[in-house]
Parts: sequence; structure tokens; C-alpha cells
Amino acid sequence: MSNKLLDLAFNPRSVAVVGASTNTFSMGYSYLNHLITHGFKGKIYPVTPRYSEILGYKAYAGLKDVPEPIDYVICCLSASKVPDLLKECSGKNVGVIHLFTGRFSETGQKDAKRLENEILRLINASGIRLIGPNCMGIYNPGHGLSFAYDFPTESGKVGLVFQSGGACSELVYYASQRGIRFSKVVSYGNALDLDESDMLDYLTNDKETEIIACYIEGVKDGNKFIRSLKKAIAVKPVIILKAGQGRAGTKAAASHTASMAGNLNIWESSVRQAGAVMARSIEDMIDLIVSFYFMPAIKGNRVGILGGGGGLSVLSADEWEKAGFNIPPLSMQIKEKIKQILPEMWWDWLGNPLDLSIFPKEVRNIDLNYEIMKIMTQSEDYDLVAANFSIGAPISKEQLVVRLRAYTESIIELDKNKQNPIAVVLNTGVLGSDDFKDEKWETLADMMSQLVAKGIPVYSNPNRASRALIRFLKYRLQGSRVQRFRGSGAVGLS
Amino acid sequence: MSNKLLDLAFNPRSVAVVGASTNTFSMGYSYLNHLITHGFKGKIYPVTPRYSEILGYKAYAGLKDVPEPIDYVICCLSASKVPDLLKECSGKNVGVIHLFTGRFSETGQKDAKRLENEILRLINASGIRLIGPNCMGIYNPGHGLSFAYDFPTESGKVGLVFQSGGACSELVYYASQRGIRFSKVVSYGNALDLDESDMLDYLTNDKETEIIACYIEGVKDGNKFIRSLKKAIAVKPVIILKAGQGRAGTKAAASHTASMAGNLNIWESSVRQAGAVMARSIEDMIDLIVSFYFMPAIKGNRVGILGGGGGLSVLSADEWEKAGFNIPPLSMQIKEKIKQILPEMWWDWLGNPLDLSIFPKEVRNIDLNYEIMKIMTQSEDYDLVAANFSIGAPISKEQLVVRLRAYTESIIELDKNKQNPIAVVLNTGVLGSDDFKDEKWETLADMMSQLVAKGIPVYSNPNRASRALIRFLKYRLQGSRVQRFRGSGAVGLS
Repeated sequence: MSNKLLDLAFNPRSVAVVGASTNTFSMGYSYLNHLITHGFKGKIYPVTPRYSEILGYKAYAGLKDVPEPIDYVICCLSASKVPDLLKECSGKNVGVIHLFTGRFSETGQKDAKRLENEILRLINASGIRLIGPNCMGIYNPGHGLSFAYDFPTESGKVGLVFQSGGACSELVYYASQRGIRFSKVVSYGNALDLDESDMLDYLTNDKETEIIACYIEGVKDGNKFIRSLKKAIAVKPVIILKAGQGRAGTKAAASHTASMAGNLNIWESSVRQAGAVMARSIEDMIDLIVSFYFMPAIKGNRVGILGGGGGLSVLSADEWEKAGFNIPPLSMQIKEKIKQILPEMWWDWLGNPLDLSIFPKEVRNIDLNYEIMKIMTQSEDYDLVAANFSIGAPISKEQLVVRLRAYTESIIELDKNKQNPIAVVLNTGVLGSDDFKDEKWETLADMMSQLVAKGIPVYSNPNRASRALIRFLKYRLQGSRVQRFRGSGAVGLS
Repeated sequence: MSNKLLDLAFNPRSVAVVGASTNTFSMGYSYLNHLITHGFKGKIYPVTPRYSEILGYKAYAGLKDVPEPIDYVICCLSASKVPDLLKECSGKNVGVIHLFTGRFSETGQKDAKRLENEILRLINASGIRLIGPNCMGIYNPGHGLSFAYDFPTESGKVGLVFQSGGACSELVYYASQRGIRFSKVVSYGNALDLDESDMLDYLTNDKETEIIACYIEGVKDGNKFIRSLKKAIAVKPVIILKAGQGRAGTKAAASHTASMAGNLNIWESSVRQAGAVMARSIEDMIDLIVSFYFMPAIKGNRVGILGGGGGLSVLSADEWEKAGFNIPPLSMQIKEKIKQILPEMWWDWLGNPLDLSIFPKEVRNIDLNYEIMKIMTQSEDYDLVAANFSIGAPISKEQLVVRLRAYTESIIELDKNKQNPIAVVLNTGVLGSDDFKDEKWETLADMMSQLVAKGIPVYSNPNRASRALIRFLKYRLQGSRVQRFRGSGAVGLS
């Protein structure tokens, strides 16, 4: 029942934005505009008594004035006006209403709580289902629904169930830069009616969704959630970030989404036991999503590390080892192979990490570097290869740019074979406005775009790469739990 | 003795680049060019028999042909040619030679080790001091010495002693973007003659250097280093990153700088006991440097958190609390003050973190937001204020840009008073090439530049901010150890 209506909410044939406005600083303008910029695939009805037309769309004074059926309502009105709107929705046979409207139980005010209860009563009596209140609602790129003007318009395979809309938006923005695209995303706020478990169930059954990530401040019904979680985990990986862990965070969660956190330890151990992958922060969640999205099956923890820079090699070895990876010494087979192409090299000097900057400058050319990288990526000594980007060489700009481009081309070429999956470590920097005109940072951004477009997982440092990938590996090694999860491949990237 | 010669190495009146070249892909070109792009303050002598002029400078066939005295020699020759060069240096009364040249004991080859020993013998016999081999050498912006074409040309107050030149360069690049500038920087490689302790002693006595950061793979003489470290820590903060911690990292360090790591636990506990601040990674070291560089004295661990976004507020509370900060609930005094400017607000809803996005939209304007932020930054309830930037709102681009700019202006204005120091959390993203033309990312970069130019510490997420600042606070609370360290203020930023 709720799944069918949720399906309507994610794929409505028509949407009414109630409280629509021409004021670019209003939510009523924004929600309408988001539909337009995302090419919403159904009919759009701005609803407001104040205008006759907004952004080229005819506006209606009330829901009842809309001549066609309405599947989904986005409400940007203030809280006190919601009960009347619900009555209108009921008369109009609306399927689902999303209340962006906040200032309900999260305020801790008795009147606000009373109003929220009244809304729940009206909803239950009407058969309409409700998302929110106090949330950003739905982003479904495949259908043109969005709660930001510039989320990606292409679809992907990650589904998000986020109690916080702000955290959700930030995840979408920052993960998009890493090549991630989304199937269906929902910010659900106070979860007055439809809750995290309903959303999770929906994504579990959604064929487009192959990876699920949840941000949860507090669950409405712990047992229901664990049941839903187990069902989800049986068919696809679920990554969970629990927000509101300490004293101050728990209090902040209560005033944010009226969430009551239970005992964190008990909750976390149940969730972990159910097989969820635990994220430590939004950044960590993005690293995990990148791993599950792009990384093919890896069979073990043996990593070959390569790239320029002795310091970075040492630091990488430390990080990968600390995370739980094994860094086998360079085998005789590999050394023999390198000897064949580089007889003049002191080949017993070479190790794993393989620092490409130590090769004689005469052979620091694209073809030979490529051949050496090929030996690593094709060796059966490793389960994956980590390729470090370095900008720390005392060379000319000309040489730096050529090296970065050649290295990127080699990685992209070698990744095609997928013999050993490649994880890239590339720090694009914290750019200030001047850096936008700097060739070094422009080149790094270009390298980032090229790698991401090919579906290669890129991380900003060895710590973040190794910590995310060890959890990915542990998940994979748990074996047959997830039959259907295929991993890998750039889906939905143009 | 070595201090006087090191002073000459950092501030030479003349430099000879031996192995100079017109080939932009050669080190001999690069080192010459770095001097020119940094406006080296002394005389520059390219030395090579192959050209008569390079980059507008007359080239000399040998050192002996240079008509003037030479203080400092940068050697880009291959290893086998170094002994002859040293004999020439001796004849020319050179002060210090820097061997970029590598392939000595780090290769593990007996011949290479023998050659290194021969060099040490020649050095000891001549009285010349040697930096390296197998290192990038010196960056002293105040004198125009550099080992990269585009390091900042302005000076600052951080001194670096780095065994790895690559790690050193990356620290300089990425820290520069956070507003950090450097006094004197040295990459010292194999430390055949001048070692980490000599460099540390020099920076301890250098007035321009107020903060020291060291990257060490292995020390040559443990007791000597601890003695130098104690002397340094008595007058300025010293941040240390130990690379080569595990099995693979230790091995990598040996083939990188011929370093022999001792027992890590013993070493680390001595260093810690001496009062050094331990960094976990290059990124962590940058966060620590930013804290010591820009943060005024903070007296306690009470943090007030503000900014837009409920999710970010909850996650921030978790991170700051986990790191060891106290997040006191919003006091009655603060609530009363907010009530005075916002009588219609449910002021008992407000908490710490103070989520600015919950204020009624009518008052989401610059002046009132500023007044609320002012109450937090001037309250005696807090020892510091953390200001979160959020891009996760379902608003229009117009509104987002206006909000970000207004928020930045408020922070900059409030930071002037320095009543409660402000730490900013701002994630500028991982930019791909398309993002260079996107107004949102451009705006964030611009905000970053503005904050940094005002000497405000900026971190990319609450985890990194809180973890760095708790160590900064602990250091400050140790009290009088460092009398002379003043902290704070944007020094050397134009």
C-alpha cells in the first residue's frame, strides 16, 4: 500500500507546488524552479492566490481550481495553513503530500505538537500519505523531481534515505563530484507518517537502486527498522550514518527533527549485526559509496601501491597497512619483468610501494612508465592496485602537466582490463579564487573529471581510500549475503 | 659553526646550479628557473659545459670559471660525478652544497653506499657542509630560493624540516591554499652530513620561524634529536609526523632515504614526552599548522557552534564532543538577548549548536543574522566559536550566493573583535573541470580566499577542525612552556 503510493510520490504524473511565488528568495519559487530545471516529466501546477502565472506556468488560486488530478503536492505554506490544505487535498484525491513546512514538534512547543497531531489525524482519516513535515522531500532525477536547482539530471544507482535535507543535499553535491549518481533520494524530516522504514522498503524493492545510504537521527520504531534493514541488506548494501551520538548531538537532533535517540550502543550493535556498513561522517559515507559504486569485486587484502613520490609512498604504506591491508614485497616475478624492460635498473632496489619517480630520467616516458604500471596491475600478487597522484616534484610546469596527463592516460588504459582493480588517490586541493586560473589546479581538476568519467574510484588521500576500501572488502568477503549486488562500472555518467 | 654555514645556505649571496640546462624537462633547467621565478636576491651562475647562456644568464663550463665567490651550490649531476664536483667546490671555497642527486645508500647497492662514504670523506676533509643527498633542498621565500616554480613568494612564520621533498612540496602547496606561508623550509633526504637535528637547531634560533613542522622517516642520532627537540619546544611549537610506521612503511623508508626506523613506540613516546605535537598525516599536519598559525590563545574547551543546516549542526555537535570539546547548552542570557531582537521567536527552541536556518524567513537577512552571530561570538559562555558553512539548502542560486556572501562578511566583521576566536568549517569540494565554471563552487572558492586573507582558520569538516583544535588547546593549556609563542594573525599575507 505505502509502496504503491510512494511509487506515485517518486514518479507523479502531476505535481502542485502550494505557496508558489515569483520571489526568487522564496521556497515556493525554488521548488517550482527545481522541477523546471530538472525537466519534470509530468504536469506542473503552481498554486497561489497571488499570481496568475509563474515562470511561464498558469497559477491556480487553490488546489480545487486545478482542472486535472494531482498525484503529489509540495507544500511551502506556513504550519498553521497545513490543516486546511490537507482538507483540500482530500477533496482532490491527492496521493502524497510533502511538507517542506516545519516548526512542528521539533520546536518543543505544545501548540506546535498539537498541530502536528491534528495533521496526523487528518492524514490517517484521508488515506493520503505524508512525507515530512520539516524536510526537503524527493529527488528523483529520472523523473525530474528535485529539491535543488543544480543536482545532477542523470540517474544513477544510489538511493538515499536521509532524515536531514541539508546533509542529504551536501552528500549529493560532494558525491556527484566523485562521479556518483542517484536513483531515488528522500529527505523525510520528522517522519510523522511515512518513516525511514517505509522509505528503506521502497528502495529495497526499487530495481534502479543498487546501493542504499541512510542518515538517521532517530528511528520511529526500532524493531520495524531492523526488520526493514535486514530485508534491504539481503539484496543490496546499506550504508548507515547515525547522527546525534553524544549529549549535545542528541539534543540537537531533538530540536532538528524531534528525534528521540535511544541507547546508541544497543542500536548500533543491532544495525551492525544486521550487516549494515557503518559510516563515520558524510565524507566517510561518500568514500564508502564511491567504493561500492565503482570498485569491482576484490578478493583479498593484498595491495600494490604505485605512483610518484617517496614520501607519499612511505605514508601510503603506513595508511594501507594500518587500515588492514597487506602490502606484499615486490615478488621476483615482478622484478624479473621490470628487469626485462629496464636492464640497467637496480631492480632489487624496487619495492612495494613502487615509487615511479626513482626510475632513471631517460625512461621517465609514457610508454615505459605504462609498461611498469601494467606489470603491477596485471600481477596475481595483488587484489587491488592503489595509484597515487603526486604534485610534489621540483620540476617545471611543462613537465608536471605532461606527467600528470600521461599518468592519467595510463591508469585509464590499464583500468579497462580490470585485472587488478585500481583505486586512485588524488588531492585536488582546497581551491581559492586565484587557483581557478592556475594551470596546476586546472590540470588536477581535469584529471579528476577524466578518471571519474571512466568510473574509477578516486579518493583524496591514502587514509580515506584505505579505510573505506577495507570495509568494502570485508563486506565482499562476507560472501553470498548479497547475491544481486554486482558492484562496479560507471552507470548513468555521460 | 653549522648554524653559520646553514645561514649561508638559506641566504646565499650567490648560487651555482651545476648541471644547468635549457631543457625544460631537466632538473638543471628547473632549479635555475625556480631561482628566477622567485626573484633570487643574490647572483645566479648556471654551470654546464654545454651552453654559453641559459634563461638569459651567462653559463660557465665549470665552477672554477665563475669569476666571483660561490656560497651555495645546487648539484643536479648524476651520482658518479659528485666527487669531482666536491673537489672543485673545495677549490672555490664553497660554503654549502645541496645534492639533489640521488641513487646513493637508499638503493641498497654496495657501490652506491661506497660512493656515498667517499663523498662524506671529501666533505669532512673540506669543511664544506652538505644537504642531502637525494633531496630537494631549500625554500626560503624571503631570499628567493625555491625548489618549485610556484611556491608562494611571500614569507610567513612556519619552518619545515622534511626528510621527503615530495611530501614537503605537497605540504607547501596544500597549506598555502589555507593561508599558510613559510619562513624557511628544507628537504634533507639521506642526511649524510647536515641532519634533522642541525636543521631543527637552525629553525629554533631563526627569529622569523614561529612554528616548526617536521616530517621524519628515521633520525640519524636519536639522543641528539631529542636534545634539539627539547631546545626547540622550549621556544616554539613543534609538530611532528613520523613516516614509516609499519612493516611496509619502514621498508619503503629504507629505500627512499636509507632511513633505519628504530622502535616506533619508544621513539614516539620520547618525542611526545618532549612536548611535540604529533600529526597523523600530511592533511592532519596542515590542520594543526592552520590552528597554530591563525588561532589566538583559547582558554578552555567550551565551543559555541553556529551556521545553517540542522544535519550539519547535529553532526558537528557529535564531532566536537567526541574530540573533547564541551558544547554548553544555550544559556538564559543568550536566549534573552535573542528574544530582544526576535520577540516572535520560540526562543526556548534554540540551542547550541545554533542552527541559523530555523529563524523565520522574514529575519533571514544580513543584519539580524549578524546580530545573532554577534551574541555567540561575544558571549563569555564560550572559549571559541565554530562557524559552519552549508550549501545544502533547497533554495535558488541567487539566494545561496547572497547568503554565503553575507555569512562570510559577518564572520570577517565579528572576527575583528576576536572576543571569541572563530574557526570556520567550509568544504570547497573536489572540483572537476566543469566545476570551474559553476557559480556555487566559484563562490565557495571566493569565500575561502576572503576568509584566509583575513587570517581566519578554515577547515574542511568538523572532524578535522575539532581534532586539530583540541591538540592546539591542550598545547596552550600546558601553559608557560612556550613563553615566546604568540599565535594568531595573518602574517605575510598580502
